[in-house]
Amino acid sequence: SIDAVRLLSRIEQLGQIGRDGEDRLVRLAASDADKSGRDALVSWMKEADLEVAVDRIGNIFGIWRASSAEDQAPIMIGSHIDTVIDAGVYDGCYGVLSGLEVIQSLRSAGFVPSRPIVVAAFTNEEGVRYTPDMMGSLVYAGGLPVEEALASVGTDGTVLGEELARIGYAGSKEPGFLKPHAYVELHIEQGPVLEKAGVQVGAVENLQGISWQRITIEGVANHAGTTPMSLRADAGYAASRVISFLRDRAASSPTPTVATVGCISFEPNAVNIIPSRAVFTVDLRDPNEDRLQAEEAALADFLIELAAAEKVTIATERMARFTPVTFDRAIVKLVEAAAEQRGLSSMRMTSGAGHDAQMIARICPAAMIFVPSIGGISHNPREFTPEADLVAGANVLLDVVSQLASK
Amino acid sequence: SIDAVRLLSRIEQLGQIGRDGEDRLVRLAASDADKSGRDALVSWMKEADLEVAVDRIGNIFGIWRASSAEDQAPIMIGSHIDTVIDAGVYDGCYGVLSGLEVIQSLRSAGFVPSRPIVVAAFTNEEGVRYTPDMMGSLVYAGGLPVEEALASVGTDGTVLGEELARIGYAGSKEPGFLKPHAYVELHIEQGPVLEKAGVQVGAVENLQGISWQRITIEGVANHAGTTPMSLRADAGYAASRVISFLRDRAASSPTPTVATVGCISFEPNAVNIIPSRAVFTVDLRDPNEDRLQAEEAALADFLIELAAAEKVTIATERMARFTPVTFDRAIVKLVEAAAEQRGLSSMRMTSGAGHDAQMIARICPAAMIFVPSIGGISHNPREFTPEADLVAGANVLLDVVSQLASK
Ligand SMILES: NC(=O)NCCC(=O)O
Ligand SMILES: NC(=O)NCCC(=O)O
Repeated sequence: SIDAVRLLSRIEQLGQIGRDGEDRLVRLAASDADKSGRDALVSWMKEADLEVAVDRIGNIFGIWRASSAEDQAPIMIGSHIDTVIDAGVYDGCYGVLSGLEVIQSLRSAGFVPSRPIVVAAFTNEEGVRYTPDMMGSLVYAGGLPVEEALASVGTDGTVLGEELARIGYAGSKEPGFLKPHAYVELHIEQGPVLEKAGVQVGAVENLQGISWQRITIEGVANHAGTTPMSLRADAGYAASRVISFLRDRAASSPTPTVATVGCISFEPNAVNIIPSRAVFTVDLRDPNEDRLQAEEAALADFLIELAAAEKVTIATERMARFTPVTFDRAIVKLVEAAAEQRGLSSMRMTSGAGHDAQMIARICPAAMIFVPSIGGISHNPREFTPEADLVAGANVLLDVVSQLASK
Repeated sequence: SIDAVRLLSRIEQLGQIGRDGEDRLVRLAASDADKSGRDALVSWMKEADLEVAVDRIGNIFGIWRASSAEDQAPIMIGSHIDTVIDAGVYDGCYGVLSGLEVIQSLRSAGFVPSRPIVVAAFTNEEGVRYTPDMMGSLVYAGGLPVEEALASVGTDGTVLGEELARIGYAGSKEPGFLKPHAYVELHIEQGPVLEKAGVQVGAVENLQGISWQRITIEGVANHAGTTPMSLRADAGYAASRVISFLRDRAASSPTPTVATVGCISFEPNAVNIIPSRAVFTVDLRDPNEDRLQAEEAALADFLIELAAAEKVTIATERMARFTPVTFDRAIVKLVEAAAEQRGLSSMRMTSGAGHDAQMIARICPAAMIFVPSIGGISHNPREFTPEADLVAGANVLLDVVSQLASK
């Protein structure tokens, strides 16, 4: 079993790195705060005697090359340590630190793996500062050219490649330099399913499709007091109609489709001026690709009608688009078996969130292990998983990895 | 008649002062750009041999003290030279520069007034940087203590009193130091009424009530991918419902009520996080006070229902509230008569915009003169009034002022 005290203490320590003036955890990809988090992770990897490698997109790898099996394709355990704005401490970090913990525990227990074991921390999984999300693993899996990713411009106008160089994490390894034999990711569920079902371990068998768009509506700025309602081309009102449409449609549908408008801005953004422009994001998800396409089409149709009715022009821009992913059945079964052997309840489930596993699944068999999120809360400082569940999940990861590295 | 070339050239010159990097006219109250505009106005006042005075709230006065009538209560002509963001060149400036022009023309024509004539430029009429709007004239009329106004914190975190001192326009005169005998304000209509009616001059007999509120909705931040629609407390969605409610209600009502949401922000404002907070402004107007109160009450009721239905909390904060104003009938008649004598068509009308005249009407008989705004466009760089209409309006002002200053 893993060293629970060491794991929990590292989660606690990493969670203190990157607090802003209001004590919020904000460790956005390639920021100064991210550098501090990366530095802590690298020092722990070195403490565990791992070889540390960084690739061109800034992904960090801690490699245990069992000497007899140096040339074999490795088992990779991974997740990310970048966070959203005002984040909880578990999202991503739990998976990376558990991977490190698993390697350290196996090693000190004298386990002899049949192939190297690697723990990876992928760059910019959250997609808050740079889009798309899961960028480091997407590049690693060959789904996005590294040059294109490095050229991404952030919400703050920065360029990812420059920021990585500035914080000292523009590595020299070519993304994909280690082709994994298998990949496992342990993560908090970030949703309410496990807690509601009273189940300790999720054996994640698939992950829903994700569609991100940015919508820009152009109307006509005019005076709020003198312009009759009938003569307005109000970009802000049109935006409100889209937000309501998406939410009402998703909420009234029997499908698991989810729709969210998380970002918005108006121009000129003055109390007595009708907005000339509204820009906002749409996050649409569904486990079924056909249904996700149907939702995108319904939105597109609605925008056409709305533009005509409100005398506005509407442009959409693709930010990210990932089809649903089915994970490797054999690894999912290993997760179930490991849980059972430890006396833990488990259930198969879908991931609502995007994860690095969905990208790495393009280049090797992959699966995920979930533990409960109390109240289903994530991307929020109140994100919480009880210690017993955190330790149980890490032990299931240990068992799955030792199985995969025994063959 | 006034000197059309001089007036039009000053409007043109003042409109070039305060252009930002994108060539937008942004001369927000008490900004560096406003300082440059004020300096130009003061130099023109001095050129016209007027005594210049500045009061504690930064209102600028150009005073022509006809020597025989120094102690009489003056005729005041006024408006403002601060602008909105990305403004047109006429709003406010046209009234101030016409006032200056009228005094200069009367003087050089040898007119001997029965009382002093003053042209005033009031501080922060637009209310974009500091609230409430019409602040300088409100303070001047005794409707807001000067200390309170000077302590206002702007949208950029600045304090008005400090900004006025910084730009050199924190004067020493007590607001209200000149009690006017009568007040007249010439302004572009900023709405479509005169152009649609094909009429050259508006004799403004009243001004609608204005209600500004800031609404803050608090929901719960959560993950956009993992949180089922039924478990959300989405502050952004709730805001969209309010925006739609206001617009749909106003648009479907037979009354002239107008409702606008001009400003908005979400927190944490990330593509994959359900907004925990939405803050936006509401601008509600109606010429009838009972109806305006009914609209405010309807909004308040809607917010109560919405908070319960969406599991959010909603707080409202008053930004500004002005009851409708009826202007002085005798001055309105002078406007009509002056237009008629010049062979100009005129009509009585309501002002949709707030104006300094509505504040000064608290301390003396007041009225306004409107000229057409092409397409009803204002608070927009495409704001436009043909030169002939600008000149006609200034001549009507000349006639009204000379009448008022003859008695
Ligand atoms: N796990 C996680 O929060 N990933 C961020 C990408 C997403 O929005 O699902
Ligand atoms: N005239 C004008 O635009 N005033 C600003 C105050 C308002 O919003 O009506």
